[in-house]
Amino acid sequence: MADAIKNSPKVTHEAILARISNPFPNSRKVFVPGQLFPDLRIPMREIAQNPTPNPAPGKTPTPNPPIRVYDTTGPFTDPDLQLSLVDGLPRLRTPWIQARGDVEPVPTPLTGPVPGRTWRQPLRAKANGRVTQLKYARQGVITPEMEFIAIRENLTTPAERNLAGNRHPSGEIPAVITPEFVRDEVAAGRAIIPANINHPELEPMIIGRKFLVKINANIGNSAVTSSIDEEVEKLAWSIRWGADTAMDLSTGPDIHQTREWILRNSPVPIGTVPIYQALEKVGGKAEELTWEIIRDTMLEQAEQGVDYFTLHAGLLLEFIPLTVHRVTGIVSRGGSIMAKWCLAHHKQNLLYAHWDEVCEILAAYDIAVSLGDGLRSGSIADANDEAQFAELKVQGELTHRAWKYDVQVMNEGPGHIPMHLIKENMDKQMEWCGEAPFYTLGPLTTDIAPGYDHITSAIGAAMIGWYGTAMLCYVTPKEHLGLPNREDVRVGVVTYKLAAHSADLAKGHPAAQVRDDALSKARFEFRWEDQFNLALDPDRAREYHDETLPAESAKTAHFCSMCGPKFCSMKISQELRAYAEQAGVTEANAKDQGMQQMARAFRDTGGEIYHE
Amino acid sequence: MADAIKNSPKVTHEAILARISNPFPNSRKVFVPGQLFPDLRIPMREIAQNPTPNPAPGKTPTPNPPIRVYDTTGPFTDPDLQLSLVDGLPRLRTPWIQARGDVEPVPTPLTGPVPGRTWRQPLRAKANGRVTQLKYARQGVITPEMEFIAIRENLTTPAERNLAGNRHPSGEIPAVITPEFVRDEVAAGRAIIPANINHPELEPMIIGRKFLVKINANIGNSAVTSSIDEEVEKLAWSIRWGADTAMDLSTGPDIHQTREWILRNSPVPIGTVPIYQALEKVGGKAEELTWEIIRDTMLEQAEQGVDYFTLHAGLLLEFIPLTVHRVTGIVSRGGSIMAKWCLAHHKQNLLYAHWDEVCEILAAYDIAVSLGDGLRSGSIADANDEAQFAELKVQGELTHRAWKYDVQVMNEGPGHIPMHLIKENMDKQMEWCGEAPFYTLGPLTTDIAPGYDHITSAIGAAMIGWYGTAMLCYVTPKEHLGLPNREDVRVGVVTYKLAAHSADLAKGHPAAQVRDDALSKARFEFRWEDQFNLALDPDRAREYHDETLPAESAKTAHFCSMCGPKFCSMKISQELRAYAEQAGVTEANAKDQGMQQMARAFRDTGGEIYHE
Repeated sequence: MADAIKNSPKVTHEAILARISNPFPNSRKVFVPGQLFPDLRIPMREIAQNPTPNPAPGKTPTPNPPIRVYDTTGPFTDPDLQLSLVDGLPRLRTPWIQARGDVEPVPTPLTGPVPGRTWRQPLRAKANGRVTQLKYARQGVITPEMEFIAIRENLTTPAERNLAGNRHPSGEIPAVITPEFVRDEVAAGRAIIPANINHPELEPMIIGRKFLVKINANIGNSAVTSSIDEEVEKLAWSIRWGADTAMDLSTGPDIHQTREWILRNSPVPIGTVPIYQALEKVGGKAEELTWEIIRDTMLEQAEQGVDYFTLHAGLLLEFIPLTVHRVTGIVSRGGSIMAKWCLAHHKQNLLYAHWDEVCEILAAYDIAVSLGDGLRSGSIADANDEAQFAELKVQGELTHRAWKYDVQVMNEGPGHIPMHLIKENMDKQMEWCGEAPFYTLGPLTTDIAPGYDHITSAIGAAMIGWYGTAMLCYVTPKEHLGLPNREDVRVGVVTYKLAAHSADLAKGHPAAQVRDDALSKARFEFRWEDQFNLALDPDRAREYHDETLPAESAKTAHFCSMCGPKFCSMKISQELRAYAEQAGVTEANAKDQGMQQMARAFRDTGGEIYHE
Repeated sequence: MADAIKNSPKVTHEAILARISNPFPNSRKVFVPGQLFPDLRIPMREIAQNPTPNPAPGKTPTPNPPIRVYDTTGPFTDPDLQLSLVDGLPRLRTPWIQARGDVEPVPTPLTGPVPGRTWRQPLRAKANGRVTQLKYARQGVITPEMEFIAIRENLTTPAERNLAGNRHPSGEIPAVITPEFVRDEVAAGRAIIPANINHPELEPMIIGRKFLVKINANIGNSAVTSSIDEEVEKLAWSIRWGADTAMDLSTGPDIHQTREWILRNSPVPIGTVPIYQALEKVGGKAEELTWEIIRDTMLEQAEQGVDYFTLHAGLLLEFIPLTVHRVTGIVSRGGSIMAKWCLAHHKQNLLYAHWDEVCEILAAYDIAVSLGDGLRSGSIADANDEAQFAELKVQGELTHRAWKYDVQVMNEGPGHIPMHLIKENMDKQMEWCGEAPFYTLGPLTTDIAPGYDHITSAIGAAMIGWYGTAMLCYVTPKEHLGLPNREDVRVGVVTYKLAAHSADLAKGHPAAQVRDDALSKARFEFRWEDQFNLALDPDRAREYHDETLPAESAKTAHFCSMCGPKFCSMKISQELRAYAEQAGVTEANAKDQGMQQMARAFRDTGGEIYHE
């Protein structure tokens, strides 16, 4: 998916800033301080709730606590800041990076000023060293990034969690995410912190199966023109709805400048597929690609601050014939480019052949690698076939080789897979790739619903997230058909947030169920406003309610338009509860005294539960 | 969900008929004859495909076979018929029912003429006998209904199936569904054929885990007025998009008349919750319900032809206290009504207490029972709790008791369940309810996405369908918020069709993958029109493509707006394939001769894969 927002009216910087900083209803940004690093300010969105009305006369309502949710919007939603897209975001991580004392300015940078922006000398590791979070973690060092992440993942204290108690913990996730736990997961290669030293604007986040499932939104322009500002707006719009990372998949002529504007204004990690830009440099002729062009493209992007590279290094020459009898051949753009090069030269994949040099570059900037799945299945028929798994095995080999260079690694996965074959992907990836994080596109569980592929893929995404996939690449309703517009991006991101959250619940992430419980309690108590505000998409929830009952009074009514006032189960149920509690009914005494009293009390008051 | 289409402009019969009979693009209705019963005409929709263009000069294109898909639209889409909603649909099953010689007119019917319609004397079993498909199946009799279903489920012959071969059969489903297999599954109670002898207009369908997963759409008016014609339109609209059954959940004053119009015009089974009408008869006061009122309501609906009843007979008095500490109490309308009655009288559930009499009625008309889950979970917090499973166990007891009366039974299930707890529901239902079909609402895998609950529930629905659930009750985007409009019904039905189809693929239903393979092949070959036409919602797919590339020429272009012409992986991949095939490349020789030739041939032609 190359281009995320088409037909946007010409956007201004002011419009972009207004759009992204527009607060969600009844929400405010809060900051939690660090403990190991007291200067840390970890941002969260706090949603206030209304109290529960008390039906007894004269009794005061019972307050409901505010709910904290994960906040991907960065400084854009900080009311104390005056931002400008030209200046870019505050450089949160610069002091942390400098304090480690292991970086130096790049002596002869490949990059330079971009029109309209001031330039900073890029950094790299001193003396061809390694400056990766994996290296620090292995040395036993807890970085500010790690503590930032630990606090960010917890959201609440254990005491605040789970109204009903999470009676069904299912996972391998501890009750509290500590900085040491973060360090340990990174050290083991089970999680990554994509954070290029040249992207200090980034708010640290983690991708690993023992953490909240993350989602990626694809942005970037294509042959169809879209302006740089529009790309920045796509980023802003994506993170407003909750994207945890964004991939800039631009393929047009202004690729370098576009990326610069995006990076300087991105609080989330930015990923790219360097081969796309390399291909532009050789006029679109894959066979003219050389290692030097690819290398310099990676260095250029490293200096700009790209946080992770998708590299299709596992697609080997000998796997190409395995795709000949597929229904949908090779469906990865990067994969098909590499395949074309291999075929034209009858040589092994360039990235595979130069893997050690690739790793040295990645380690010098702390760029994570996302090993691309160029042979992922593009249809149900091709799922889990020889080609796909042949490449995955090589992804595993490359993972282990990258780890020798302290490079942080994740692996990309398919694609289109029927439900019963999804787990095999996760299991094989875990086994072959040494538990490195898995990052999948969907998977789509059927091919027959173009126009609804955000849904076919959300089914697979939620499942594979539960099984252990750490990040899900979103799919919009336009997948396979055309360019997503702003509304499609919103639907794609929200759909993937709900899939990721479903996976968090199923994995037993300790912070996940709080929001479900709060929203359900609000629903049961007819606190409509709170129900909307706690939703992933408050605007949409309110809009749908307004369609049938727009009156303000309907937002506190003890029924809705679905069943009407006489048939509201929640209302009846609330009143049953009041009676039961009055009568002290328990299961044990239900058949005798307790229930008899309850029945009498119920009849005595006229048995009138319905109030019109 | 009570009311399916609001704010419809006043509809006319002509408009309803036009809407439902509007054919899908490039599709025609075909009929497959029976073999045991040669008079049977089993309807299917056949989608024609364009040929695959042959790039070699002078060579003719390769034809692609038409694809048959399941057709729920009934006689409405038969171009040879002139229908009228007043006359109702042809009475397909009347000769089959009469030929069995076991029915007689109801001597003193409770029902009579409805304004604007002619009346037929209703039938019942002779001499208090049983006329159920389960009885016939147990006697070893294959009915016309069973052969109709067998042919309907197969869709294609084995030879036509699976372009790529279904390399991953996962199920317990045979390669060909035979009438004997249908009979055997019904006899075992693992599948039901809801088909009231007073609903002869119905085209037989089956609900069971070894068959295609079915979906139900809820219709029916509520306190908010909607006309009878609008209800008929909701039915027509639902079956156009693929609903396999519809539940009439009307609660208004015209409940009897509305149902009559629906039944006489429905080719799909109609379910109801009789307690809703019974409650209307006592002015909405649950405590005034009596066995006699409920019984007569069931008889009235039995005479009209309702095919299945949801009866909340498993919600026992002693389970009510189990809901007191829930986050969302009782969320089932029927459940809360029964609970209220139990509490008011401190007596056991009326339906439970009169179960044998209930079964006698059901058996005399062949009404299937859908054992309601009045205590289903309405939030993640309440999933799989004591209350829910206490009721499910009683559903199991009632299932076995109903089977003694040859009554066909399915069981309803939740609700809201996190993914890791879904399978437990299926497993317990299979065990406790003797493998009777399971019929679930979703389940929703998180509570935090009101406005997107068609998606949160489709995730759970697809999964539980794979695990063995036989029918999925749809959820629209308006769930929890308001009345679905026509567009919401469309989105809800299509979403559930894709969930059900995903489950069919995962279960290894032999007829499922044909459509995926055909659509993917069309996609790979840039046959855009075929891709649209094979989609579950062709109009939506075309509309999305048109948004960016409306020109007619774009419908045959070898690229789309997503990647543009230079970055189309499918295009590159197609051309790689052509080269590989020319060179006779196999995996075995890939590293030597074959690939060398391939590379040479590739370079010889200029390596020009991109054609702008």
